Formats: sequence, C-alpha cells, structure tokens
Amino acid sequence: MDQPNLALQMTALGARAKAASALLAQTSGDQRAAAVTAMAAAVRAAVAAILAANEQDMARAVALSASMRDRLQLTPARLEGVAAGLDAIAALPDPLGAVLEDWHQPNGLHFQKIRVPLGVIGIIYESRPNVTADAGALCVKSGNAVILRGGSDSFASSGAILKALRAGLVAAGLPEDAVQAVPTPDRAAVGLLLTMTDTLDVVIPRGGKSLIARVAAESRVPVLKHLDGNCHTYIHSAADLEKARRVVLNAKLRRTGVCGATESLLFDASSLHSHAALILQDLLDAGCAVRADAALASLDARIEPATDSDWGTEYLDAIVSAKVVSGVAEAIEHINRYGSHHTEAILTENADAANAFFAGVDSAIVLHNASTQFADGGEFGFGAEIGISTGKLHARGPVGAQHLTSIKYIVRGNGTIRAG
Amino acid sequence: MDQPNLALQMTALGARAKAASALLAQTSGDQRAAAVTAMAAAVRAAVAAILAANEQDMARAVALSASMRDRLQLTPARLEGVAAGLDAIAALPDPLGAVLEDWHQPNGLHFQKIRVPLGVIGIIYESRPNVTADAGALCVKSGNAVILRGGSDSFASSGAILKALRAGLVAAGLPEDAVQAVPTPDRAAVGLLLTMTDTLDVVIPRGGKSLIARVAAESRVPVLKHLDGNCHTYIHSAADLEKARRVVLNAKLRRTGVCGATESLLFDASSLHSHAALILQDLLDAGCAVRADAALASLDARIEPATDSDWGTEYLDAIVSAKVVSGVAEAIEHINRYGSHHTEAILTENADAANAFFAGVDSAIVLHNASTQFADGGEFGFGAEIGISTGKLHARGPVGAQHLTSIKYIVRGNGTIRAG
Repeated sequence: MDQPNLALQMTALGARAKAASALLAQTSGDQRAAAVTAMAAAVRAAVAAILAANEQDMARAVALSASMRDRLQLTPARLEGVAAGLDAIAALPDPLGAVLEDWHQPNGLHFQKIRVPLGVIGIIYESRPNVTADAGALCVKSGNAVILRGGSDSFASSGAILKALRAGLVAAGLPEDAVQAVPTPDRAAVGLLLTMTDTLDVVIPRGGKSLIARVAAESRVPVLKHLDGNCHTYIHSAADLEKARRVVLNAKLRRTGVCGATESLLFDASSLHSHAALILQDLLDAGCAVRADAALASLDARIEPATDSDWGTEYLDAIVSAKVVSGVAEAIEHINRYGSHHTEAILTENADAANAFFAGVDSAIVLHNASTQFADGGEFGFGAEIGISTGKLHARGPVGAQHLTSIKYIVRGNGTIRAG
Repeated sequence: MDQPNLALQMTALGARAKAASALLAQTSGDQRAAAVTAMAAAVRAAVAAILAANEQDMARAVALSASMRDRLQLTPARLEGVAAGLDAIAALPDPLGAVLEDWHQPNGLHFQKIRVPLGVIGIIYESRPNVTADAGALCVKSGNAVILRGGSDSFASSGAILKALRAGLVAAGLPEDAVQAVPTPDRAAVGLLLTMTDTLDVVIPRGGKSLIARVAAESRVPVLKHLDGNCHTYIHSAADLEKARRVVLNAKLRRTGVCGATESLLFDASSLHSHAALILQDLLDAGCAVRADAALASLDARIEPATDSDWGTEYLDAIVSAKVVSGVAEAIEHINRYGSHHTEAILTENADAANAFFAGVDSAIVLHNASTQFADGGEFGFGAEIGISTGKLHARGPVGAQHLTSIKYIVRGNGTIRAG
C-alpha cells in the first residue's frame, strides 16, 4: 500500500476508534461482559474459518523456527482455549464505575473519584494470534476501543479472529469499531500508529526487545513499557535449603521462555558450600547451563565462567548466571544495576533480610520464599493480562483489565463559588 | 557552557539524583516530614540571601512585562508564604507505605500492593521562583529525588532558594542531592534532561503552551502533561438563574489568569432570553469582553462576533467565548472537540442532565453547580499541587504529593512453587 493512502486509512481507523470509545464509555458493566461473551461465542462459531486462515499463515511461515511455528499454529483445542479465555474475561468484575474516593470539603462541595476507561489503546504484538482475542476482550471489558497491530506472520489468523470478535460486538449491540486492526502487516503502519497522539491515549508494545526498543524510541503516544524480565533469585545465607532447592528449580526451569523465569542467581558468600553447591548441582543435573563467577565455578567442573554481559542477559532458555554477593545490600545493588525492574525473589528464613530486600529492590514484583514464575496476572488473580509493566507510571506489574483505566473527578455543588 | 561539558555535568547530576533516590526510598514518613520542616526553616533563615539574589534577577528583567516582573518579584511576605507552604506540605499525610491492597491466593501466597516513590522526577517550569520550593518539597515528601529546571529569568532567585532547601535536607540528615537543579539556564540543559531515560522516571513540564509542546515533542522520558485549561461552563435550560449568574461570574472573573478559569460558555437554545441575556450582561457590566455566535450576539450590542478559533482559545484574560447548543449532547460534543480535557461545569437543577454531562465529558474534573475555579489541589484537599494533569495516564486532575508515587507488589510464600 502506498504511504499517503495508508496514512489516510490510519486516520480513518483512528476516527472510528474514537467514536467507538465515546459509545463504550457510556455502557454498563453488564453490557460489556455480554459483549465479551458474545465474542467468545463468535470465535467458537468461526473455528473453521480461523483454522483456514491459520493454514495460510503456516504455509507462508515455512522458514520460521519450530518454536515460532508452534507459537503460530492454531488447533481446535487451542481455539477452544482462546474462547474459554474470553469467557473468563467476561466473568471478571467490572473494572469501571467504582467510586474510588468520596469526600466532602467544608464549603459543601462533594467530591468523588471514579474509574473511567482510558479511551483508545494501541497494542503492538508479535506472532501469537491468540493475543488478538485476549487484548481485544480486555480492552472491551474495560470500556476502551483498541487498535491492534499483530505480527505479520499471523496476519491472516489474526484477521479471522478479529472478524469473529467484531461479529460478537455487533451481536451484543456494541460498536464493532471498538476492536480494529491496522490494514496491513507493513511496518509503516506501526510508524503511523505511534504518531497518532490525537487518537491514542496509550500504546502497549508486547514482544521482544527490538520491538519494545523501537516503540520506546519512536512513539509520540505515551507507552506502557513491557520490558524483558531479567529476573533474579537471591539465596540468602539463612535460606532453608530444601525450600531453596525446590524454588530455584521451579523459578529457572518450570518454563524457560516466560518473562518471569529466573535468569540470574545470587548466593551469599557465607553459604557457598551449604547452599550454592547443591542448588547449582540440581540445575546442572536437570540440564541447565550455569555461567558463574570464579568462586562458584570452582564448585563444579560443569560450570562455565560468566562474563560481564551475562549479568544483564535474559536467556529465555535453560541457562542461568550465578554470582556471589557479600549480603543483602550487595544483592540489592546488583539487582537494581543489572535487572530489568520486573520480578525478583529472596529465599531466606530471616524476616529482616526479606524486609530489607523488599524495601531496597526497585522492581514491580518482589517475592519472599516463592518462585519468580508467579509473575503472571492469572497467578495474581487479575485474570488475563496484557503483559507485565516494568515502568513505574500508571501501571506496574501484571496489567489486567482493571489497569486499563483512568480516573475522573466529579464534583457536586449548589451554586458554589470560590472565595478569594 | 560548552555542550560536552554540560552533558557530563548532567550525567553526574543524574547519578547523584539516583543515589539520593535510593536513600530516600528507605526513609520513614516522619523523616521526610521533618526534612520538609527543616527546608521551611532554612528558607526563613535565608531570606536576606534570597532577596539579594532576587534583586539580581529583577535588575536583569527590566524588559519583562509588569505582570511577569510581578511574578518574579520576591518580598519578605512572599517568602514567608513560601515557607508556610513548605510547613503545610510537611504536615500532609505520608503518601508512602500504605498497603493499598492485601489478599491471599488459594496456593497460600500472600500479596500486598504498596505505595512506593516514583524515583527521580524532572520538573521544568517557568518564571515563578516559588515553584522551586513547592516542587522540591512535594518530591521530598513523596520520597522522590528531583532535578529542577526553572525559568532563566529567575535563575538567581531559584538558586538561592535551592541552596536553602538543600541546607534543610542536610540539617535533617537526608541527602542534599534529593533536590538539585540543572547547572545553567541554557536551554540545552532541557534538551539533555529530556533524554535521561536511565535516570528520570518522569518529567513534569509546568508552564505555557510552547514549553509543554516542546517537552511533549522532544522527551524520551515519560511526561505528565499539564496542558492549558480551556474550561467550559454549560448553562443548561434547567439552571437556577441566580446560582448560574453567581457561578458564571466567579468561574470567569474571580481570577482570569488561572488554568481553572472558564474560557467558554455554552447556553441551551431554549433559554437565551431567560438565562443567556442576563448572564452575559453581568459579564459585560463587569468589564469582560464576550465573543459569541450570531444568536447570542443579537442579545447585546457589546457582544463581538466569535470566530472558529475562539472555541479553542484559552484567553487567561477578561474575555469569554459563548455559543448556543441544542442540549446536553451537543454541549458534550463541543467540549470534547474544542476543550483541553481539564475542567468543565454544568449548571442545572436537572439531575439527569448533570449525570449525562458527567458521563459524556472527557475531562479530568467535571462539576455540577459549582465554579470551574475549584480546579486546584488545595481546594480538593490535596495540599500543594505540582499542577493539573490533563493526560489520562498515571495522574489526572490535581497532582499532589500522593500522586508522585508508584506501586510495588510484595509476595510472601513458604517455599511456594508454581505448578504446571
């Protein structure tokens, strides 16, 4: 598509989103829940069409790696999972309308702070086509219009899912333009989206480092950052050994490709032989590569030497870096320096150490005696999530429907004027 | 100052701010309140030095308008006002530490969502030197380090106030680098500040349209927008006439230079003679110019014709635009199109009309039967404010100490691992 034509299309898309957003802001929680239920029903009704579109994507994706192809592949069972996910979003409490604060001032004014939708959200994501359904439903549930830009690999699959979502909206009597997608997989559409400051209230990139970096560098629209998860587990000298062995294996290896997987271990110098040796041996025995500093490397011949670049690396694989620290203070300093402000855990039976860790570590999620793999909106009880925000503005940690909202102050008087 | 040297200084400034921020994050509410009290005492102790610095600024400011010179001028009484403002900030409730949510999941994990500081805040503002004190104290109160960039006109005055604030921090045992300023009034320092994404968590511009526009266009750091206040008062056909006359005069003329001043009036077509004629006559008699559409202009010979550009203009003067609408729906549409999403009021005795207005108007503050001049953190009971945010992300409406915060999730387990 030529650029001027695309720009016109994007402007029209934005205008439709804004109009849909104004209508959505006036809906009840019941109406929005019913719409998401109708979207689930429409996905179930469109299984054949979605699978056919997915076959087109798969046929074009022959050059992709096996794991990328697996992420792209849809099956009847996976689509039922998508529809069930939408039903779960429909069943969440209404994120809107709540009176968050309510107070009177001495002059008689009555103030209320209420939850309102953000408006129009842009979501830019990579290949998994199920994100189309999750993201669309989370935005509708929270009263927002959304403009989706999925991965080019899944363009046909996402388009077929989108068609079903819009059919569900129509069936429920809500504007179908509440959920739209950019008209082309062309990267130029992303560039245009990131300049639509009159239309978009926020853009949420969800994907790999290069996508996030591009969005952060280019966007004129405010960004909810979802950076990488370079998560740490710090095994304090007062850690219970059996708990620590169990938690570290889970934190690193339950799933290595999720953003909450532990990528780096810190051990107290005083517990190398009591703790580090056994924990690292567990990991090595389970097939995990370990890259460590010299003190730890001396514990097992299978340990490789770490370089400085290991401390900042999110492997998303069966690899872990490991380092010795002198105590809680150095652990905190290391994490704040090399981490990505996502999720970190301390394993200890010493409450003071845990509290110091909680206070000092500047991350969205800090855990005590638990696996970093709990960094997930579902595990928090938020239902489906758009991602884990590592920024500190607006939303931090798992971003669910309740976080895709803003507030408004409503103030009631009786001909009240301001003195002075 | 040459650019490479300035860049090095800015980097050093950022590193000091970050270090101070880490220390501040560990302080108690009592410590931060005591520090702000000490800052107030230090301002009182430095009155002579601050006034001497202000004389230098005033001597350089001969070319400024009388109103600009008045904003710049400090007096012993104004400085006592600054110190008293700091005392009031010290006395605010601690914005940090509160447990906002607290819940358990079935697997035994205990979740808490707590308030934490944002980190390092950049504040860019124009000539009034008292903002140096307010902004510095609000940031310290909320546990943040701040880098200030005041107007070049007030560089000496702000520097003298800054020196006092830092002396107060030292007296209270907190790091003086919690409050710093850029080393030069050179605009290049602003450009550098807006790229310091590793240091600054947010930048807050406070000033005129051109400053905000520059920051919005250039910043790589997230921005808390404080746009202009093109505020509307809509006089619905069911408005009580006497309340409406009182509120409109106050909303427009109490102070014309504040962002909550009403800039535009909307009248229902059905109440031109019953309401509009008298209300506009009040304003004209009080010396306010009125620029209106043809239907309203026919009511009084003193009314000038409005052009389309009037609907989007923030006069900050004794001028008001006025327009006829067909009812609540058109009023909402006009406001959402031409307003700045700041503050709007409806005057009516009809609760349904007020509720429709509340639901439809997309502004930070919406009022019923009250003056738009209440758009002020103090009037909300928030204490001092940094400004009124017109963005929907993170903070909307008056931004006080409690809004200069983020959250963190702390999660406690007992060797808890994630299944599946």
